[in-house]
This record gives sequence, structure tokens and C-alpha cells, in this order.
Amino acid sequence: MADQDAQSPVGFEPPELSVLRWDEPPEGPVLVLLDQTRLPAEEVELVCTDVPALVRAIQTLAVRGAPLLGIAGGYGVALAAARGFDVAEAAGLLEGARPTAVNLGYGVRRVAAAYWAAAGKGEGDEAAAAAALAEARALHREDAQASRRMAEYGEALLEDLLPGRAYQLLTHCNTGALVSGGEGTAFAVALRVHRQGRLRRLWVDETRPLLQGARLTAYEAARNGLAYSLLTDNAAGSLFAAGEVDAVLIGADRIAADGSVANKVGSYPLAVLAKYHHVPFIVVAPTTTVDLETPDGTSIIVEQRSGQEVTELTSPRGVSAGGGGGIVVAPLGAPAYNPAFDVTPPELITAIVTEEGAISPVTGVGLAELCARSSQVTIS
Amino acid sequence: MADQDAQSPVGFEPPELSVLRWDEPPEGPVLVLLDQTRLPAEEVELVCTDVPALVRAIQTLAVRGAPLLGIAGGYGVALAAARGFDVAEAAGLLEGARPTAVNLGYGVRRVAAAYWAAAGKGEGDEAAAAAALAEARALHREDAQASRRMAEYGEALLEDLLPGRAYQLLTHCNTGALVSGGEGTAFAVALRVHRQGRLRRLWVDETRPLLQGARLTAYEAARNGLAYSLLTDNAAGSLFAAGEVDAVLIGADRIAADGSVANKVGSYPLAVLAKYHHVPFIVVAPTTTVDLETPDGTSIIVEQRSGQEVTELTSPRGVSAGGGGGIVVAPLGAPAYNPAFDVTPPELITAIVTEEGAISPVTGVGLAELCARSSQVTIS
Repeated sequence: MADQDAQSPVGFEPPELSVLRWDEPPEGPVLVLLDQTRLPAEEVELVCTDVPALVRAIQTLAVRGAPLLGIAGGYGVALAAARGFDVAEAAGLLEGARPTAVNLGYGVRRVAAAYWAAAGKGEGDEAAAAAALAEARALHREDAQASRRMAEYGEALLEDLLPGRAYQLLTHCNTGALVSGGEGTAFAVALRVHRQGRLRRLWVDETRPLLQGARLTAYEAARNGLAYSLLTDNAAGSLFAAGEVDAVLIGADRIAADGSVANKVGSYPLAVLAKYHHVPFIVVAPTTTVDLETPDGTSIIVEQRSGQEVTELTSPRGVSAGGGGGIVVAPLGAPAYNPAFDVTPPELITAIVTEEGAISPVTGVGLAELCARSSQVTIS
Repeated sequence: MADQDAQSPVGFEPPELSVLRWDEPPEGPVLVLLDQTRLPAEEVELVCTDVPALVRAIQTLAVRGAPLLGIAGGYGVALAAARGFDVAEAAGLLEGARPTAVNLGYGVRRVAAAYWAAAGKGEGDEAAAAAALAEARALHREDAQASRRMAEYGEALLEDLLPGRAYQLLTHCNTGALVSGGEGTAFAVALRVHRQGRLRRLWVDETRPLLQGARLTAYEAARNGLAYSLLTDNAAGSLFAAGEVDAVLIGADRIAADGSVANKVGSYPLAVLAKYHHVPFIVVAPTTTVDLETPDGTSIIVEQRSGQEVTELTSPRGVSAGGGGGIVVAPLGAPAYNPAFDVTPPELITAIVTEEGAISPVTGVGLAELCARSSQVTIS
């Protein structure tokens, strides 16, 4: 297993990633995104001058990850307001861009509410646009703070569950700086553990079909000097069986009121494996991911994506809307089942870690208490 | 889910696949293989004139699948004998080509034994070579017969477990005509169920990293007119959770004396999911796959393959030895964990179906009885 060892220069701090920023060149305000479909091959920025461009960036996954989608949605409303587009129409387009991540709708509604509140006071379009931008920036800042607090709570939880040890952690999809205003959710916990010299290894699921683990988490792990190894999603079972996984850390796209967690497809099988092997399965997500309006897992709408994402392999540079344009690996016309997410019920989840603290066991009451502590979640 | 419906013309019989054949052109005997690395894009034959070429075909997975490896190994010995190469050396090279599939060693040893028996009688090189070829052909024929019997026993078992229903079956990797002298192992069961009009759907795991499900099983399913849908390996969890899997059917590369099954990586997580969801998990393999010399799962040597198979996507035309030459999807130098197989313990297996019948529950005693019924397994 010699090729599984990565260097781990503890203390090394790479330059911060700029995954999303508001810019105001002479031609007018824009939202600049790091195009995540091109990673790790290239660091290319996408400049969105209007909401349809941003919607397309969201749908093609150029910008992705639940918390970052909320921030992007918020800035999208601010962009429409600053450029004099119809804010209600823009908000509608953005909210509908992807159905499963609750944060997107939250960010959109929160910034739109700030816009309408200012507009309602008769302060004029410019002041309303400024209020929208200020709210988007506040959301961005709060998310960075939430990352730090989730990392602290998550690391404390690991110490409670597995005291005095260095850990082998397994993660799925991408939950780092690329999905957040800060250092992320689940990945931020692993990063904090690494900085404390207590990360033995981060096992990174490649995360088919779009390979966010291989492309993005491995990129962030390498960038931060973590000891990590990449694996196909189906090889995680061998690691559990060999006792090489101390805990699973994942993010969430939507958490229902009963604690059911929608996350990237492949999370649920990990939860079942973790349960079978008595390994803690920990969800790390801000309270903005909690949707108290969705009573349980069966009420969560799971996005079904194009089968081409499964039947064609696309390079990091070539991912297009709904797949396509890749190397065909299945017979022409092969039908495919391609849910983007799956739903893990609370009984398979050891703990949910938020910026307001962790709950374990996961109950609807506990979750509601965390949300009540957060002023953010009261705006919807 | 409209794109999940495939046509199912029951009764349609496609032309038989020639996956491996012995040929005797004027230049001398050769073993002709369908190059499985090029499927489904192209049906291209590889002509092996000597054992090193065959070893390379085995290692690059141009020829693969436990039963077919046994047949290929047997013909490899016959080829060495017919061309006057050193038979002992050829047998050693072939046996060592891949470590996990027990059938390879079985086929090699069986045909070599026939060669040495004839040579020992002083009948001359030509007669010994003829004896080797006759033994390889017998092994080929017996494997085709074994396919038919496994399909019958497997279908009867499904009827016992799930009487009077049409089934949604889930399978992993490739276990059809491409791995066998006949119609295969697990896939042959699904094909028989289809021909009886009782296959609602075959769920086909794509089977990362080398995509044997997407490339080969989908090809065989389409070729035979089965209703099938392809999925990423990690999407199987969603199907179990939704109650859309009636049984799992997989093959095996090696079955230990206690009933532990080594099969393509990703089989074990399916077994855990099946257990959790009370879905039958059925292994279909000829008794030649049973290795009574290997006492249990921990004694099975699992082949570790190059991490490049994970970090680079290779097209069906471009799969090379140990990966490489593909589109890089991970950061350069990303370390990867890439076991080719995993091991499922007997307590997670509902039944093992062989050409000698099925055992359920899976016990060492039951397995030994099946092997005793088979005259094949006594030669080792």
C-alpha cells in the first residue's frame, strides 16, 4: 500500500481559495465564480453578469455545494437588483435552479426579503440594491463563521466518541472551501483534525457520477497537505471490513424536521455500512440546511439527473449541462437511473453537527432546538 | 423515470458471442479472444500465438471473468504444448497472471495434468499436446453445461424465495457469456428469468473502476433484449431503500471453504445493504470457483491494482495494463486505494448456486457436499 501514503506537512497553510466573489468593474457589478467543473485541471473563473448565467452555472455544477449555493443565490438576487433586472423573476429562476439543496432557496429568499424591505421603505432602487448586497455579504460572512464553529464542534464530538486517538476518516463528495464561504462542513472538521496532527488519513470517495471526490476533495486535500487516499465508492466496504474507518463525515443538502438527511448519492450506503460496522456516521451542515417545513425523508424531492452522466465519462474540462460530450462507456441508448442524492434516516446517523452545536442521538426535538438557537433559520 | 425503460422482446435470440476460440490457421495453432477492453465500442479479436501474449491479455482484462479465465488458462497450456514451448513454464506464467480467481489455476493445472499424463505414457509430444487440447475443450464444454444448470438452479431458487412474481434483480460486474464457455453465472440466471417473461428489470451496477457493468453487462443485456437500467454503484442504496430490488445476483472469483466469497469490489457493500433490507443476496458460480484449500475469507489474497485505474478515466478503447493513458480526473500524484475484489462472509449470503445445486444457508459442510458431487473439483 506504498502508493497510499501522502505527505502531511502539518502547519502548512495554502493560499486561500476564492470560490465566489462580488466584483464591480466599470461595466457594472458581476459575480465571479471559480468554475468547479474544470478542477483539478485548471483554475478558471466564470464571470456572471446576469441571473440566467448564474442559473446555468448552478445547473452545470460550476458552482455547487449546499452552503455555497445559498451564498450564490443570495448574490444572484443582489446582482439582479444592482443591474436593474426584475428581482422577483430572478429570485424565482434561482430558487428553481436545483430542487434538493435547501440553502439555495434560503439564500435567495433572505436577500430578496432584505431587498423588498428596503424597497418598501421607499428608499429607491439603489438603496434596495445596496441592502440586498449587504445581506448577501452578511450571509457569506456568517457562513464562514459557521464553518469555523462546525469544525470546532465536530472535532470535539470526535474526541468524545473516540478519545485520545488519531483518526482515519472517510468522506464522500466535496464539502470543503469549494462549497462554503469558509472552509466547509465535513471537510472543515477533517482539516481541523489534520491541523491538530490527529488525522491518520482521509479516505476520499471518488463520488460517481461527477467525481466531486476525485476532482475536488482530493484537490482540497492535496492543497492542504492532508494524508489522503482516493477510492472508488464501492471500495469503502473493504475499508470498513478491514477496520480502517474510524468515522464517516459527510455534508448535507437538506435535513428534514425528523433528522433525515438528503446528501450526495452514495451517502446512504455508507450509513448502512457504518451501522453494520459500529462506526460513527456524522453529518456536518449549517442550520440553514435544516428544512423544518419538510417533515421527513419521504417528503424530500430528490433531483433526477440525465442518464448521460452515467453512460458517458466526461473530463473535468468537458462537463456540460446534463452530461453529454464525453466518452461513451455504455451501449448507445443505454437507459440509466441517476438520482443526484439519497436520503439517510435519523436512526442511521450518529450525530448532526451544526454551527450551533451537535445533537446525538438525532431527534426532531434536538434538531428544532438547534434551529431555534440560530437566528438565521428564522428567516424563510 | 421514462428513460429507464428498455424494450424487452421476450423470445429474441441474438447470434452467439464468440468470446474465446481455438483456431488452427496454416501458421500454427492460436487462441482467439474477443478483446473485452474494447467493448461496447468495437468487437475486436485478439489473436494469441503464445503464452506471454495470453498472460498480457489476462492482466489487461482483455479476457476476464472467473470461469472464462479457467478456460483461457487451460487453452493456454494446450497452446504452449502445441507450439512446443515449455509447458511447465507456461503453466507457471499463466497461474501467476492474476492472483484472486481460483478458476485460472484450476484450468491450468487440469490441462497440464492431462498433458503430463499423456507425456508420462511415452506417447510423444504431439499426443501429449493433443491430450492437453482435448482436456481444454472438455473444460470449455463442461463450463457451458454448468452455465445451463446454474441458470436452472438459480431460477428455481428465486421461485422458492419469491414465489409467483416477476423480479427486479440487481447485479454487479459482468457475469454473462463474456465470462464463460456458456451464458455465464449470475447473468445466466437473469437471462433465463427474462426468457420466461418474469424479469421486470435488471439493475446493472456500472462497476468502477473498470466499468465492466456499463461496458459489458449493459452490452449483453441490450444484446439479449432485457429490460435493464444502468446505475452508478453508489445509487444501489437508493433502490434498496425504495424497495426496488427483489434480489441481488452476483458471481464469484473465489469461494473459501467456509463459504466466504471473493468477488469484484463493491459486492460486499451490496451484501450489507441486502442484509439490512432483507433482500436475498445470491452468489452464482461453478464449483470450480470453490477453493477448499482456502479455509476462510481472511485467507483470500485480494489483488491490489494500480491507482491509475481510479485517478484516470480510460475509454473502452484505451484501457491499458495497470490503467494509464486516460483522462486524469484527480490531482496529479493523487494516492489511491484500488482493491480489485472484496470478500463477503457467509452470514451475509442467502445462497450459493452452483451447477450441482444451491445451498442455503451457506455452510462449509454444504459447500463441501456440493464439491463432492462435482467430479471437476477433485482435480487440483
